[in-house]
Amino acid sequence: MGNEEETWVVMKTARAPSNIAVIKYWGKRDEKLILPINSSISVTLDPEHLSATTTVAASPAFEKDRLWLNGKEVSVEGVRYKNCLREMRARATDVVIESSGKVIRKEDWNSLHIHIASENNFPTAAGLASSAAGFACLVYALAQLMGVQEKYEGELTAIARLGSGSACRSLYGGFVEWKMGQEIDGTDSIAVQLAEESHWKDLVIIIAVVSSRQKETSSTSGMQESVKTSPLLKYRAEEVVPKRIVQMEKAIKSMNFTEFAKITCADSNQFHATCLDTSPPIFYLNDTSRKLIGLVERWNRHAGEPQVAYTFDAGPNAVMFAKNKEVAAQLLQRLLYQFPPSADTDISRYVHGDQSILESAGVNSLKDIDSLSAPAEVAGIPNLQRIPGEVDYLICTNVGKGAYVLGEQGANLIDPVSGLLKK
Amino acid sequence: MGNEEETWVVMKTARAPSNIAVIKYWGKRDEKLILPINSSISVTLDPEHLSATTTVAASPAFEKDRLWLNGKEVSVEGVRYKNCLREMRARATDVVIESSGKVIRKEDWNSLHIHIASENNFPTAAGLASSAAGFACLVYALAQLMGVQEKYEGELTAIARLGSGSACRSLYGGFVEWKMGQEIDGTDSIAVQLAEESHWKDLVIIIAVVSSRQKETSSTSGMQESVKTSPLLKYRAEEVVPKRIVQMEKAIKSMNFTEFAKITCADSNQFHATCLDTSPPIFYLNDTSRKLIGLVERWNRHAGEPQVAYTFDAGPNAVMFAKNKEVAAQLLQRLLYQFPPSADTDISRYVHGDQSILESAGVNSLKDIDSLSAPAEVAGIPNLQRIPGEVDYLICTNVGKGAYVLGEQGANLIDPVSGLLKK
Repeated sequence: MGNEEETWVVMKTARAPSNIAVIKYWGKRDEKLILPINSSISVTLDPEHLSATTTVAASPAFEKDRLWLNGKEVSVEGVRYKNCLREMRARATDVVIESSGKVIRKEDWNSLHIHIASENNFPTAAGLASSAAGFACLVYALAQLMGVQEKYEGELTAIARLGSGSACRSLYGGFVEWKMGQEIDGTDSIAVQLAEESHWKDLVIIIAVVSSRQKETSSTSGMQESVKTSPLLKYRAEEVVPKRIVQMEKAIKSMNFTEFAKITCADSNQFHATCLDTSPPIFYLNDTSRKLIGLVERWNRHAGEPQVAYTFDAGPNAVMFAKNKEVAAQLLQRLLYQFPPSADTDISRYVHGDQSILESAGVNSLKDIDSLSAPAEVAGIPNLQRIPGEVDYLICTNVGKGAYVLGEQGANLIDPVSGLLKK
Repeated sequence: MGNEEETWVVMKTARAPSNIAVIKYWGKRDEKLILPINSSISVTLDPEHLSATTTVAASPAFEKDRLWLNGKEVSVEGVRYKNCLREMRARATDVVIESSGKVIRKEDWNSLHIHIASENNFPTAAGLASSAAGFACLVYALAQLMGVQEKYEGELTAIARLGSGSACRSLYGGFVEWKMGQEIDGTDSIAVQLAEESHWKDLVIIIAVVSSRQKETSSTSGMQESVKTSPLLKYRAEEVVPKRIVQMEKAIKSMNFTEFAKITCADSNQFHATCLDTSPPIFYLNDTSRKLIGLVERWNRHAGEPQVAYTFDAGPNAVMFAKNKEVAAQLLQRLLYQFPPSADTDISRYVHGDQSILESAGVNSLKDIDSLSAPAEVAGIPNLQRIPGEVDYLICTNVGKGAYVLGEQGANLIDPVSGLLKK
């Protein structure tokens, strides 16, 4: 570091949740601006269980932009990072550093380099929208650091969108719609909150992380191939989704679980249908995913109306919505019955997140799992195989809030003296 | 049996092949008449390897219509059998019994009961269009017995269609189109031959029969559900298939394998996509099916142009078309490499049908399979699992001829004295 005046480091830390789409985003009309071919709707997951935490720091001593993801330095040269940084710098304002009273002027941000450190509280490779949480968190943290004020509501979501399409939906809590927009510059392709997280308190979410040995197609290249080759995708985007968006908005606003579940399941299946209609076909669901779908469909049919909805993103993991906490406990019992953990797995390692669901299910040990009995709806089904280890682990969670600042100093991932990743 | 005059039994035996659709039939516009929502195109399989053989017999001594399928008597009261029998009786003519000179008059057929015995030369449960071959064979054999002459070309196919939609395509050899038709009574919903079996001699067909432990949805109920609930199926039938029918006709007539393969694979995948878009979703492909698709797609990509096409009906079995015999031998090597038989399986039980492909592949024993090396295109793929027993067996076959009469007495499945199933 150079002279004394240039040794300061200013930083902000924020957290942003993952979100799970219930009306799926698949296909871009503009690859550069990440503009989608249809609107989508998501549910924000509790950041306590599924989120990214990101510290952004600036200092005149930094020689270049740098980025650490989950403890490892990676390149910040990717166009998606560069686009987000450029757009945020362009919106920076004069910022006063509280501790010293020093002023960073609006125009200074163009020359100040940024260090970024980000980590997820869930496995990155699990296909649980880590990039959505990550880019939402980056943009939100930069807005805090640089004193960015939105000129119109949703402006930050349009910038997060440049990092990862679905990131725009992770800035808000509760139920969020990404409006596809019409403008060529993408300024109206933004996320809006349909209802906040306190709106539909009954819903409980259980995620089954499925062991996947096959390499998946990345969503970026997958959706490119689908747009190019699937005749069904175009029809879906233009004819099917617009109607479903209206129905889903209504279902969410009126907390109509039956409608919510029907549309959620149908839209997940239709998204995977367009993947299969792609040439060469893309498969994200595997036999375990199909068994999870079977478990839910059987139960719903037996119950006479939907108890649980399922949805699958670009991977084999099931995200399931239970009607209420009681149903969630029954769902957990069913999942533990059909998908027991491997013999050497600790129960607390198998069920992550909100432990109160596990308590409601009355399961405290592997022995409790062994003594679970088959649910009524599987009575007539021969050879229902129970293979331990087909599911890696379960996460119990809730509808969560949007991005927020972490106030405490201890939350910073960057060392305020060195400006580097904290050890 | 009553007086001497009534002891005669007259019978005919015929054989009809299975067929495999390369443009799929899925969905009816009329459930009773079995009228489809789109035209379809199939390839007729060699009856030597995949066919039904059916004997039909009539005698004044028979007290009711009776039916034996693969050695077991089953009810002939189903509407599909009754429809076929009624339509054939209505078209019967005066028939002279060669041996005795006795004449069965046109109107006699209405009161004469029919005994039917049918068997397949391949497993019924394997999902290899046994009902298509069966109904085509029944109608063809009855036409022989009753002296039915078609009033218009394809009339018999329209009657076979009443038994099982795709049966109409099994009356002809080679390449066959089932024209959906427009008439309300279904008279123009008939099969026509696009090219005979000798037209495209290079093609070789290999079928991988995949072990399936899950109970499948029957095609009848499956397509009903799809018509009711899949938004994508309607679009497929109305917009996608008509164009593909034209392209496929052209590809077949010009023997353009690249086009044939592209359309065949795309149409199989799109059919399964509409199954997935059904509510609740229908899954016919399993993880082994997906691996078979992967094997072909990888190879085709590596080769720079299609070597093999795949198609899957309402089940997990892959039907693969190899460009020529040399490619077929390479395909067989690849299949045996990735899907070895279980350790205790005899090679001749694992590879059925045309054994000359096995010879061309240079595989004579399990040891030869062990020493097969990985094909070039899998070099970069980690963890390519080779699990013995994932595929039950393979059938090597060719494009085959349509229905025909079996002349020899020994071929009859019904005893000419008792009128019952031969022991």
